[in-house]
Amino acid sequence: MKKQIEFTRAPIVVPPQPGKLREIGACVEFHGIVRKMENGRVIPALFYEAYEAMARSQLERIADELNAAHPCDELCLIHRLGPVPTGEASMYLRVLSRHRQEAFDFAAAFVTRLKADAPIWKTPAPASQCTAP
Amino acid sequence: MKKQIEFTRAPIVVPPQPGKLREIGACVEFHGIVRKMENGRVIPALFYEAYEAMARSQLERIADELNAAHPCDELCLIHRLGPVPTGEASMYLRVLSRHRQEAFDFAAAFVTRLKADAPIWKTPAPASQCTAP
Repeated sequence: MKKQIEFTRAPIVVPPQPGKLREIGACVEFHGIVRKMENGRVIPALFYEAYEAMARSQLERIADELNAAHPCDELCLIHRLGPVPTGEASMYLRVLSRHRQEAFDFAAAFVTRLKADAPIWKTPAPASQCTAP
Repeated sequence: MKKQIEFTRAPIVVPPQPGKLREIGACVEFHGIVRKMENGRVIPALFYEAYEAMARSQLERIADELNAAHPCDELCLIHRLGPVPTGEASMYLRVLSRHRQEAFDFAAAFVTRLKADAPIWKTPAPASQCTAP
């Protein structure tokens, strides 16, 4: 499985679709978006931090584990760090596979495992960090 | 649930993401892509046909049924008709929801129901119909 895992402090730009992959039948994408309500409170943004090197190796390990159960061909993950305003994506995931169910199952499980097991944290951001650059 | 269902005879153009939806936390997208192997044979394309009006009303009904089990906010489906060359998408689906699991479950089930229950058919296309315009 080809794995591309990136962290960015800028708004996520979805990378172009790969060229024609003649054995790929399914592309599943997920955008995790910051909602204005977090734990019952209106927030202007969330602030994300990560141990990048550890998170990357952990996520690669998670991908390999999930790939054994849900065989897929490619994974692209972009996770934003720093302040992410309400309504913007903190995470973008793309999974390519031959058949669709594997991609759906892989993608859903990968996000769950990322949130549970990867050293990436979120905290409400102070309003001063949420203004556009 | 807001539903947008379209058929097109041109390559699918993914519509822009909706503006900032402050209570949307998940956007799941699916591209169903024509593979070069269909039932063990190499094909240049597939050819899709539909009873459009019936397919649309059937898909709206399926969406309402699924929404009862997996509550989501918006559905956008674009299905291509006519010849779709290998490597291109025959279908694009976008589902928006407050929480991610509903969107994953809705999207996976919607594609399965579309293939099982909507009056949309595919046949291998003759090579002469597969050249780019």
